[in-house]
Amino acid sequence: MSHVIVTDPPRADLVDVDTLAELGVATVHEAMGRVGLGGPELRPSQQGARIAGTAVTVLSWPGDNLMIHAAIEQCRPGDMLVVTTTSDSTDGMFGELFATALQRRGVRGVVTTSGIRDLAELRAMNFPAWSAAVHSQGTVKASAGSVNVPVTLGRVVVRPGDVIVADDDGVLCVPRSEVSTAIAASKARLHKEEAAREAFRKGELGLDRYGLRPVLADLGVEYVAAETYYGG
Amino acid sequence: MSHVIVTDPPRADLVDVDTLAELGVATVHEAMGRVGLGGPELRPSQQGARIAGTAVTVLSWPGDNLMIHAAIEQCRPGDMLVVTTTSDSTDGMFGELFATALQRRGVRGVVTTSGIRDLAELRAMNFPAWSAAVHSQGTVKASAGSVNVPVTLGRVVVRPGDVIVADDDGVLCVPRSEVSTAIAASKARLHKEEAAREAFRKGELGLDRYGLRPVLADLGVEYVAAETYYGG
Amino acid sequence: MSHVIVTDPPRADLVDVDTLAELGVATVHEAMGRVGLGGPELRPSQQGARIAGTAVTVLSWPGDNLMIHAAIEQCRPGDMLVVTTTSDSTDGMFGELFATALQRRGVRGVVTTSGIRDLAELRAMNFPAWSAAVHSQGTVKASAGSVNVPVTLGRVVVRPGDVIVADDDGVLCVPRSEVSTAIAASKARLHKEEAAREAFRKGELGLDRYGLRPVLADLGVEYVAAETYYGG
Amino acid sequence: MSHVIVTDPPRADLVDVDTLAELGVATVHEAMGRVGLGGPELRPSQQGARIAGTAVTVLSWPGDNLMIHAAIEQCRPGDMLVVTTTSDSTDGMFGELFATALQRRGVRGVVTTSGIRDLAELRAMNFPAWSAAVHSQGTVKASAGSVNVPVTLGRVVVRPGDVIVADDDGVLCVPRSEVSTAIAASKARLHKEEAAREAFRKGELGLDRYGLRPVLADLGVEYVAAETYYGG
Amino acid sequence: MSHVIVTDPPRADLVDVDTLAELGVATVHEAMGRVGLGGPELRPSQQGARIAGTAVTVLSWPGDNLMIHAAIEQCRPGDMLVVTTTSDSTDGMFGELFATALQRRGVRGVVTTSGIRDLAELRAMNFPAWSAAVHSQGTVKASAGSVNVPVTLGRVVVRPGDVIVADDDGVLCVPRSEVSTAIAASKARLHKEEAAREAFRKGELGLDRYGLRPVLADLGVEYVAAETYYGG
Amino acid sequence: MSHVIVTDPPRADLVDVDTLAELGVATVHEAMGRVGLGGPELRPSQQGARIAGTAVTVLSWPGDNLMIHAAIEQCRPGDMLVVTTTSDSTDGMFGELFATALQRRGVRGVVTTSGIRDLAELRAMNFPAWSAAVHSQGTVKASAGSVNVPVTLGRVVVRPGDVIVADDDGVLCVPRSEVSTAIAASKARLHKEEAAREAFRKGELGLDRYGLRPVLADLGVEYVAAETYYGG
Repeated sequence: MSHVIVTDPPRADLVDVDTLAELGVATVHEAMGRVGLGGPELRPSQQGARIAGTAVTVLSWPGDNLMIHAAIEQCRPGDMLVVTTTSDSTDGMFGELFATALQRRGVRGVVTTSGIRDLAELRAMNFPAWSAAVHSQGTVKASAGSVNVPVTLGRVVVRPGDVIVADDDGVLCVPRSEVSTAIAASKARLHKEEAAREAFRKGELGLDRYGLRPVLADLGVEYVAAETYYGG
Repeated sequence: MSHVIVTDPPRADLVDVDTLAELGVATVHEAMGRVGLGGPELRPSQQGARIAGTAVTVLSWPGDNLMIHAAIEQCRPGDMLVVTTTSDSTDGMFGELFATALQRRGVRGVVTTSGIRDLAELRAMNFPAWSAAVHSQGTVKASAGSVNVPVTLGRVVVRPGDVIVADDDGVLCVPRSEVSTAIAASKARLHKEEAAREAFRKGELGLDRYGLRPVLADLGVEYVAAETYYGG
Repeated sequence: MSHVIVTDPPRADLVDVDTLAELGVATVHEAMGRVGLGGPELRPSQQGARIAGTAVTVLSWPGDNLMIHAAIEQCRPGDMLVVTTTSDSTDGMFGELFATALQRRGVRGVVTTSGIRDLAELRAMNFPAWSAAVHSQGTVKASAGSVNVPVTLGRVVVRPGDVIVADDDGVLCVPRSEVSTAIAASKARLHKEEAAREAFRKGELGLDRYGLRPVLADLGVEYVAAETYYGG
Repeated sequence: MSHVIVTDPPRADLVDVDTLAELGVATVHEAMGRVGLGGPELRPSQQGARIAGTAVTVLSWPGDNLMIHAAIEQCRPGDMLVVTTTSDSTDGMFGELFATALQRRGVRGVVTTSGIRDLAELRAMNFPAWSAAVHSQGTVKASAGSVNVPVTLGRVVVRPGDVIVADDDGVLCVPRSEVSTAIAASKARLHKEEAAREAFRKGELGLDRYGLRPVLADLGVEYVAAETYYGG
Repeated sequence: MSHVIVTDPPRADLVDVDTLAELGVATVHEAMGRVGLGGPELRPSQQGARIAGTAVTVLSWPGDNLMIHAAIEQCRPGDMLVVTTTSDSTDGMFGELFATALQRRGVRGVVTTSGIRDLAELRAMNFPAWSAAVHSQGTVKASAGSVNVPVTLGRVVVRPGDVIVADDDGVLCVPRSEVSTAIAASKARLHKEEAAREAFRKGELGLDRYGLRPVLADLGVEYVAAETYYGG
Repeated sequence: MSHVIVTDPPRADLVDVDTLAELGVATVHEAMGRVGLGGPELRPSQQGARIAGTAVTVLSWPGDNLMIHAAIEQCRPGDMLVVTTTSDSTDGMFGELFATALQRRGVRGVVTTSGIRDLAELRAMNFPAWSAAVHSQGTVKASAGSVNVPVTLGRVVVRPGDVIVADDDGVLCVPRSEVSTAIAASKARLHKEEAAREAFRKGELGLDRYGLRPVLADLGVEYVAAETYYGG
């Protein structure tokens, strides 16, 4: 593997990015066909944040933040930094000094499979982070890595310029080439969900709304009175 | 295993259920003889909720929410939905559309060994959830399962109609047949705790209050001055 | 192993302890040479607490809180209780009754590798706790252990009288003999960080500030335009 | 919870138990409708063991083996000891001295959600054990528990007298009342599996044998040539 | 996501595949620049296997083996099946019936992020498997997935036709386009390793061989006699 | 933290070390008062090894094996290398080239909280390793660490010259100053165990041998016939 810093990757359009932020992780994930999620270990630093940005990706050696420094120079307004390591690590690779530099450049947040620190300061700055750990463990600047190469967040591959959507429910990657389709499908889903919400508020059952009674019957699921099942 | 939806299980009395909610998980657990807890992986969706309800149980295939739809029809005011899967899963089986339908039916909350999503919406609705994961991963409606059969939450077996108590400390199951005993024992404990709290506020030591000095002596625990133990 | 309760260990000076609290976990950890942290599994019971205290250490049998009772008598104002077990446990060894007794004695908080309970009450009392689990599981008072012997929090050894610093970022131990050095180094670091913060706010890059461009070059990291790297 | 030692529970018939051992965990589990398994964390102490026995259950305090001593007296030839704890523990609750006593009484093996030790000796004695951990951590004899009450292994509830089947694939519980049904269904499955095995050896595909081509079509799964899908 | 079965992907050359098997996971991984590994959770079903094959990839719904049936038809001699799920699962998706069908088609082994079962039979057949779990939990055939789409094993993306190398040390993916480079680099590394092995056997130190003494000095690592460091 | 390589620490006597190896992990651990164990995550690379050696300790940066090179020079016949990292890591820091160099110097084995690789080769060389992971992930030689400083294995602190005992049951540290006491206590325990083994072989019960019947009675454990407890 040669180590590279890839410059000026094309990004998704920021108008689309903002639309995806409003739609939120769960809705866009469903609309895309239930793909694109980072794992459940990625938790937010603060409640209630719902943002999206274009990915600048970092692949670092564990315990080493050198490549984050290199990545910051590649960031533009509307970006979101995605930091991964070549093997498992919980070190606190990201903290408020990086956040300060990123906020100056218009970056909206960070996602990392490693750890973050300076949690109180990040909250005070309103710079949201999603991470697999909170840990103060400091890092060095000694080993090579890459910027803007494809990286993985759990099962999803993130490429630079892809859209990262993140909220209380976790982190989603929308590939740049699928942004328009994702938005259209999400809006359609939103309408469907709103109709379902209204129906459920009025007492309709999913069993009826989605035609699930025959599914249950076909699967051999039987209704039994409790007094029969558990005895008199 | 035949798959069944058991209807109309007898429930614990809601007056008792509300009493147990006030008593809280830790107190009732202690009073019952230190049994009945779900595991520490079950964490609440929002701080400060303390509720109880009668269990409607769901046993689902992993990645499949069909049986939750079937379970909703079985719910009554005062119930609490308990969703488990036949093998480990972190999928987001439960979200705000289900919560909407359940809230309409007077259901008070949900507990799941799987994942939840729409966290912001669940908080806004004030519909509390206890889960082992927060994850947006969507599910299908393709495989059979059961409703109102006995299920396990960690080491505890939950039967339909049992009381589920849940708060910031986790989730507790009080078997329907033990509700009266549990309430009586919890109230007695509450008085004992209040007396202890007062004594501790005044400076009494647990060593004296609970007669533990002879216990330490019998176990051979010795007092040693630091300068003796660690050297001068 | 003989079981002992070591009395009157010398403590770090409380003026220094308070200074370390203000400096916070991440800064002092870095200033000490990136050592002294408990693991990322130690999470706080409430957001925003930042405290420090002198360690009173407890080594308990799993599922047994006898030695916490013994430890309370050894506590003084400014202390912090550090509770570990001889093998892994998530039991709720610590709750509000212990907190009441400790608060009466001027103890500032608790750190445990085991579980805590009464989370709502601990928050209401403003008695912060850092723990590896929240679990209501009750404990007995039957087995011997020790007080004020050296214990481990993750990779760090804590001795009685050492300073425990704890905040949203986790838990740090500053050995009593290193307190002055740690404070001096932390203050120096604070100034360096403030200067970096200012520089980053103005748009300077870490690459330039820390002289990292030649490091990248030496490591063979190359800059490549996206259209070259990913194709036209 | 009152602590009890339940004596002389009825056991499943040993002829049936031996039949279930021959059938093995995976086959019986499938034949029972895909239920009854302990979790994947239960791993064997030695390769190639495949046994079954009637359960004598133990519920112990973590770090305490007192109730194993009590349970041994309750064991008979053909039994299998099932040891659980009231909360998570990896302590080495079971070793070769217990195995010696059990082997003398005709007990066939042990299953525990906690830890085992003396692994080399257990292998030399040919006394197989399934456990969630191997750890030497010693235990005390200080706290109450119960013998022959229902206990849980992962999602499955084990009652005394139930059949425990254990092999390289893990641990299965066959409720005493379902033994005959399970054997009949397992034998039927065995024949079906043998036929499938023969067919697969000859090159038949599961797609055809199980009629799955229309299932794929109904689910909208499409065949695409690689050169179309990935480009020329 | 549309679900597809991609047919006839180009495969790496089997002569090269066999060369990579001989070289082994650790050597090829190092030679490729320390990339390409599946995670440490992928463990082999039997000691001493060292194989390689061309990947046929499967993306299944958790708890569902439908797509494995579909994948078998796509397999050719020299292939290796790579089975992943859309979310975390430990179910026993793969057992000896599948192995029988695959062995008939000349497939060499299987890798799965989920569970396997029939461990004794797989060993007897000499059909090696690498998996994240051993569990008997049976699966259904109800939900759509894909065959021969890119999938992830930990941090590595596997594409159909890539080479999977697997041995006691884990699982490695060599992208089809990098096979020649990987082989050349691995052979070079092998020679370097053999020379190092000889030197180490004769007592040369890595410190000298790799010129590390100045590295230590530059990093400020100092030599101190124990009696100075620990006191007299 | 200044980084140091401590030279010539005093070691425990090799005659004693060999005696401890014969006694084994579980026996010595019990005899020492149930202390000194590394955690259950430390598993052996090969079945049946039972060795002991004097500790040479290494504290490395995660993903970096520089300090292992430095440590090898400090090793003598009869030593055992103990490798830890400053934060969690599963990287394959140790493999057969290191083993070759160590075997040349008379080192007996390695223990690491990180990962090992070249498992087949280590087995073929009969160089046993205990580790928390098997992973091929390669490491760099870029960051400072220390040799022969105190390190932690789980809850135990290992100092250079201490005795490491390791077998199928795990890893134990016997502090150098406690070697004689540990040997004496272990031999006494061995005799007690042999007597117990004989008694158990003849059918005596632990309940009687250890006088546990009154303990059960005092704890309120009651005997109940199954037909009373479970109903007729």
